[in-house]
Amino acid sequence: MNPSNDILVVGSVALDSVRTPFGEATEALGGSASYFAISASRFAKVGMVAVVGEDFPPEHRALFESNGIDLSGLETAAGRTFRWRGEYNVELGHAHTLETQLNVFSTFHPKLDDRHRAAPYLFLANIDPDLQLEVRRQMKSPRLTVSDTMNYWIARKPDRVLEVLREVDVALLNEEEARALAGETQLVRAADRLLEQGAKAVIIKKGEHGASYRSREEHFITPAFPVEALRDPTGAGDSFAGGFLGWLARRGAHDGEALRQALACGATMASLAIEDFSPRRLAECRPDEVAERLRNVHQMVHYDLEPLDLQGTNGP
Amino acid sequence: MNPSNDILVVGSVALDSVRTPFGEATEALGGSASYFAISASRFAKVGMVAVVGEDFPPEHRALFESNGIDLSGLETAAGRTFRWRGEYNVELGHAHTLETQLNVFSTFHPKLDDRHRAAPYLFLANIDPDLQLEVRRQMKSPRLTVSDTMNYWIARKPDRVLEVLREVDVALLNEEEARALAGETQLVRAADRLLEQGAKAVIIKKGEHGASYRSREEHFITPAFPVEALRDPTGAGDSFAGGFLGWLARRGAHDGEALRQALACGATMASLAIEDFSPRRLAECRPDEVAERLRNVHQMVHYDLEPLDLQGTNGP
Repeated sequence: MNPSNDILVVGSVALDSVRTPFGEATEALGGSASYFAISASRFAKVGMVAVVGEDFPPEHRALFESNGIDLSGLETAAGRTFRWRGEYNVELGHAHTLETQLNVFSTFHPKLDDRHRAAPYLFLANIDPDLQLEVRRQMKSPRLTVSDTMNYWIARKPDRVLEVLREVDVALLNEEEARALAGETQLVRAADRLLEQGAKAVIIKKGEHGASYRSREEHFITPAFPVEALRDPTGAGDSFAGGFLGWLARRGAHDGEALRQALACGATMASLAIEDFSPRRLAECRPDEVAERLRNVHQMVHYDLEPLDLQGTNGP
Repeated sequence: MNPSNDILVVGSVALDSVRTPFGEATEALGGSASYFAISASRFAKVGMVAVVGEDFPPEHRALFESNGIDLSGLETAAGRTFRWRGEYNVELGHAHTLETQLNVFSTFHPKLDDRHRAAPYLFLANIDPDLQLEVRRQMKSPRLTVSDTMNYWIARKPDRVLEVLREVDVALLNEEEARALAGETQLVRAADRLLEQGAKAVIIKKGEHGASYRSREEHFITPAFPVEALRDPTGAGDSFAGGFLGWLARRGAHDGEALRQALACGATMASLAIEDFSPRRLAECRPDEVAERLRNVHQMVHYDLEPLDLQGTNGP
């Protein structure tokens, strides 16, 4: 038996047709597991559990393999691959979905073998929370489990989404999802509420405003790496998750310091992903590019705190 | 002649009637110069050039004086004090103005004496950009000039607002103002455009997302201090400016390191301001509270950058 992978991801592999003000892509590789796996593969060995149809192009499979991604859990089912078609407006805040064809994904049921179950790091990408819970409960004893979700599930199965939040170590949400799930407009309060409801830690992704990490003990943030050449925001969140969990798996630690570095690594990988359509840029990025962006992100926040001496000033 | 103040502020002193989901205040002390001066007075000696009417309550004047603010430039004109009435919705993003009575402010013409002109730090709060330029040109040779503005002037006098940006060392704008003035939706590009148009440095204030500083050489951010007990966001920007410039005046430096600390100090003072109506909380805050928030803001961003060794990973 092969040694286990560092990270297991369970999620979607799709063919995306996307239009943005900066170009378009037709039936390009997409899906949460694809972005996550390629991003995380920069740092660690990744295994993927997902499903594609018989029409899944061999070059996409080859791309995963050339990134060292273990595809033993990538099932090929009778029928067509999951397809998503969407467009972004000038604001680029949110995708407008034009068409979703679930195809083989509609009956997707993750199948984990012993090697999958032994992975020390687990990413539950955005799928039905019932499936996320099923996968989590099949795992032996992962050191760290991270989840993602989306508004679709928050609207339909809020209790199950909250159950996932309680079972995982870190739950990723974007601003809108955090507000919707918590029923709070202010993000600080939304995070409070999710912790009160049993989440151990949440990361709120805020696009160009970066991301914040909250647990009962910790509260820290990362800025976004400032991207001038944004082309397609699709997959930013999954690429963020890949950088975050990839960094932790590579360091083999998830103490406060490692989590802070990992958050910056997430921001770094998200910034690369959005510079091109599909996970192309992630697949092409060189280690020195990643290292340079990590340094830049660090420089954006680093300073020494000068002790405050307010003797002789005014006030009470 | 008295020694010069550290900081001169030129702006408005008003009586604000504000309603938020968390309470209301009627004819309370407001105005950009008021929030700025009380915030900055925690760190440095502040002089104020502004105008009030004959109805200006003596207790507000006493509050300024108890904070060591030099009121020799606070003119009392015949007529009523500037009044603003507004409300915030649940989102608390933007004030909805119900009524503006310029009163004595409509004919305000800043009068600077020799002592005002000698101040080493200048804050041009949000007033007509023509007046901002006039004040700036009367100053001897301030070490650092910081400006603010608002959408009202960007819509009516964009060229003059840009002229102010070129004359000052650091221009403060909120997200919406930066986008409007630059004609760019993405903030990174908006900042680029303003620098191309001659601004030396801009600070973009982003509410609960903190603030970013951009010059040709530097790009750094501060998170907002997470406020749970937000009551009234009025004056947050001016309080931010007061913390920023107050810190620089106190340190007597504005190198990169001082600017980074000052940005965190701005976020700290803004967080205090919004916990109550009017600048009450600013006037009451103790040095140890300020110091503790500064430490918290620093902890939100501080980590050591681990060198990235991607030998043995996948990818090009």
